[in-house]
Amino acid sequence: MTDIADDTPETAPARPEARSPRGFADRRGSDLIAERRIVARVSEVYERWGFEPLETGAFEYADALGKFLPDADRPNAGVFALQDDDDQWMALRYDLTAPLARFAAQTWETLPKPFRRYAFGPVWRNEKPGPGRFREFTQCDADTVGSDRPEADAEIIAMAVEGLAAAGLDDGQAVVRVSNRKLFDGLFEAGGITDAVQKLTALRAVDKFDRLGWEGTAALLGEGRLDDSGDYTKGARLPAALIGTIEAFLASVSTPDLTRAETLDAVARAGGLGATGEAALAELAAIDAALGAMKVGQDRVRFDPTIVRGLEYYTGAVFEAELLLDTVDDKGRAVRFGSIGGGGRYDDLVARFTGERTPATGFSFGVSRLASALRAAGAGGSADVRGPVVVIVFGQDDMAAYLDAVAELRRAGIAAELYLGRAGMKAQMKYADRRGSPAVVMLGGDELANGQVTIKDLDVGRALAAGVADNEAWKAARPGQVTVVRSELVQTLRSIIDASSII
Amino acid sequence: MTDIADDTPETAPARPEARSPRGFADRRGSDLIAERRIVARVSEVYERWGFEPLETGAFEYADALGKFLPDADRPNAGVFALQDDDDQWMALRYDLTAPLARFAAQTWETLPKPFRRYAFGPVWRNEKPGPGRFREFTQCDADTVGSDRPEADAEIIAMAVEGLAAAGLDDGQAVVRVSNRKLFDGLFEAGGITDAVQKLTALRAVDKFDRLGWEGTAALLGEGRLDDSGDYTKGARLPAALIGTIEAFLASVSTPDLTRAETLDAVARAGGLGATGEAALAELAAIDAALGAMKVGQDRVRFDPTIVRGLEYYTGAVFEAELLLDTVDDKGRAVRFGSIGGGGRYDDLVARFTGERTPATGFSFGVSRLASALRAAGAGGSADVRGPVVVIVFGQDDMAAYLDAVAELRRAGIAAELYLGRAGMKAQMKYADRRGSPAVVMLGGDELANGQVTIKDLDVGRALAAGVADNEAWKAARPGQVTVVRSELVQTLRSIIDASSII
Repeated sequence: MTDIADDTPETAPARPEARSPRGFADRRGSDLIAERRIVARVSEVYERWGFEPLETGAFEYADALGKFLPDADRPNAGVFALQDDDDQWMALRYDLTAPLARFAAQTWETLPKPFRRYAFGPVWRNEKPGPGRFREFTQCDADTVGSDRPEADAEIIAMAVEGLAAAGLDDGQAVVRVSNRKLFDGLFEAGGITDAVQKLTALRAVDKFDRLGWEGTAALLGEGRLDDSGDYTKGARLPAALIGTIEAFLASVSTPDLTRAETLDAVARAGGLGATGEAALAELAAIDAALGAMKVGQDRVRFDPTIVRGLEYYTGAVFEAELLLDTVDDKGRAVRFGSIGGGGRYDDLVARFTGERTPATGFSFGVSRLASALRAAGAGGSADVRGPVVVIVFGQDDMAAYLDAVAELRRAGIAAELYLGRAGMKAQMKYADRRGSPAVVMLGGDELANGQVTIKDLDVGRALAAGVADNEAWKAARPGQVTVVRSELVQTLRSIIDASSII
Repeated sequence: MTDIADDTPETAPARPEARSPRGFADRRGSDLIAERRIVARVSEVYERWGFEPLETGAFEYADALGKFLPDADRPNAGVFALQDDDDQWMALRYDLTAPLARFAAQTWETLPKPFRRYAFGPVWRNEKPGPGRFREFTQCDADTVGSDRPEADAEIIAMAVEGLAAAGLDDGQAVVRVSNRKLFDGLFEAGGITDAVQKLTALRAVDKFDRLGWEGTAALLGEGRLDDSGDYTKGARLPAALIGTIEAFLASVSTPDLTRAETLDAVARAGGLGATGEAALAELAAIDAALGAMKVGQDRVRFDPTIVRGLEYYTGAVFEAELLLDTVDDKGRAVRFGSIGGGGRYDDLVARFTGERTPATGFSFGVSRLASALRAAGAGGSADVRGPVVVIVFGQDDMAAYLDAVAELRRAGIAAELYLGRAGMKAQMKYADRRGSPAVVMLGGDELANGQVTIKDLDVGRALAAGVADNEAWKAARPGQVTVVRSELVQTLRSIIDASSII
């Protein structure tokens, strides 16, 4: 034994730092309520269209996910993967389509067919996080598996339109653009192009038509293009004749506001589609007929042959939902919000498991992104989510009276809470303000002695502070604070809450 | 070149097997809808009580989760863990309390205090899966952080009672039992017991009082016990005097149907509680007063000093919600369903991060388990979730007429779908039956020619098949199939659907 202190000081074990892993967000309160409202409203639409909910587990075996296989030891290619007890690699799902394909393949014999399902839930991508770029986010998908009918595509498109409207996007705020992958298959076929890389390069060029115009797209379809920053992009090196055909094809849609039928006519007139392209046109014509029968307006769904969509697994119709509003970024600059969802037909995804081609079509959107779009459109925001009424605590002795009041409010359907901290009056008022409370309820000694209650209307103070109301007029109409007999508590608060929702 | 076939046959790459990892379930349709209904109803209650929603990410840093730290290379101690790009270990959350403690510590300065939040979502446990035992399941929690008042515990308890009722458990079907950890702290203190292992062993013994009775419990508090299967369990080796005090303590609650106040009196009379135990009794008395002020019945919340709860982090009041029904297992044997949720006060969890004691209290339940309890109680089941009306497809030519009908039904708020497969009439009827459809809509050539529609009531067939209805009486009241003018489609279906909900 010695009195000399040991080198290691006898302190408590080091405290962990309170932080969450990069790319994982905490979300709370009114923002979260606004997102959940979107999911609830869209789910209600999807169920009305006969789509049943499905929830699969967070993990899938890596071979079932397919696209991103982990390296031997260090799984990092886009997914969060780990080895199970039995040494099999499993990974968190990166979308809701791959788990659906696995589920459909696994249970095909027992499913009612065609199988319509919708799903929402988190997906995970092991990518570099950044501002507004998360490694976990919520997707909402609807898919029909087992129908090769163009009407199945039309149904998905029409349902997406109704879902976006239910979420809060009005007429003219969003459009779904539709095309068919096989239009380009036909153009390539007729033009003698068979090389997969060449095709993909050409599709990427077409994908930029919107931004680059024809000249830039033509360069990328041909030899290549030097952009403004000095970067050179190698082109698809298509033959000049095919580039000419594609020019006519794209010119066919350069007139704005064509109806769906007019767009199909223009594409047909441009020609060079080959048998596959003609079949694609016939599918689009059937989709148009079905949309017409369901009374889906021309302004809600347009045909746009420049839509190609990135994912390789699409095999037919492709859709992209776009926000039509010009929005501003956080520096106040006008920006196009762009895509808020998309999908298409993918007839080969279930066959990865079963070997049998199983037609499928679906639509997907990101919930947070749609919430941002709604905020940009001035709808479905979080501002209209109100906090609870707060009952003030003056002292321990009258706790029963406070609890009685708060319970009565809840029974009347009014969100209410008792302040349960130990701070004084001023801090309690500040607390109620931060909670977004419409009002506070005060049962002080005088009120209790006289069978009364005092109610303070917090929105009056907020409105005055914000300068939205004329001081005198407001004071007359809404006194800010009233003392009433205790039995009028609920009724008085109701009128304040009803008035506050008009502000 | 050779004609001899190569050893490696030229086949397609091996197809992955369609299966999900062990312990991860796919859930769909009406079961899932029933679970979501629970979450929606409970959320509505919790928001009315002033609790705001919070969603944290699936991953937390392993040191923040605390309890289960991964091994150096092979993380398997209860959690799913992996190393991030920057070599830090992170793990999927195993409950919703640890992420709340991290969030509260991280954002404490900016939170309105006390901070009330509720949360629901999946949690993951890397344990051996088994029948009914999953590695992913949904929890629903509500917690108040920053209030040391017993009224905060009472509020959580009363809210849990209202949540269970909103989910569908009627009076007398569930009870919340409440105790206080510090009662035993006081007994141990007064009895001179300081060893942590000895205390834990004694608490485990008390936890078995319900099942073993006093004799078995006394053995486990003393030297040990040989059970019926011949296994010997080492006892806590408490001194005989303390065992006697605990016997009096437990006997104080052996009278059934005591009120909460009567239970506290009985415990006080048993004595031996020391200063800490007396303080615990005072806290329970304050909880009782608050429950009384909120009019929470004696049959809904009982005090039961035998409740100890397993988790080491509880520091005061502890609660356990129990289903009161005797249920039967899948072999028809009567079983006690037992606990359907629990919680308590944990004043040290946030201090792990901040070093400052931060009082907190909460309640948690597993959503699937509550759904099972509701099924056992004959409520909130999935049987009342109906499928959509199915519109039959006779041929491609009349697609527009079918789509028009299905769109009209949805606009009227009736869940409806068009059959989009390629099968014939018989398969379509079978499909509608499997979907749980109340009715099918037929627009054949005759109907279309005459401006009519035929509607087949599928519940009539189901009722006859199940023998629940007399054939003749039913045929008179519900004809099974009617042909009406097309304009009466919605109205006719509404009356069928309304009637079917009575069956």
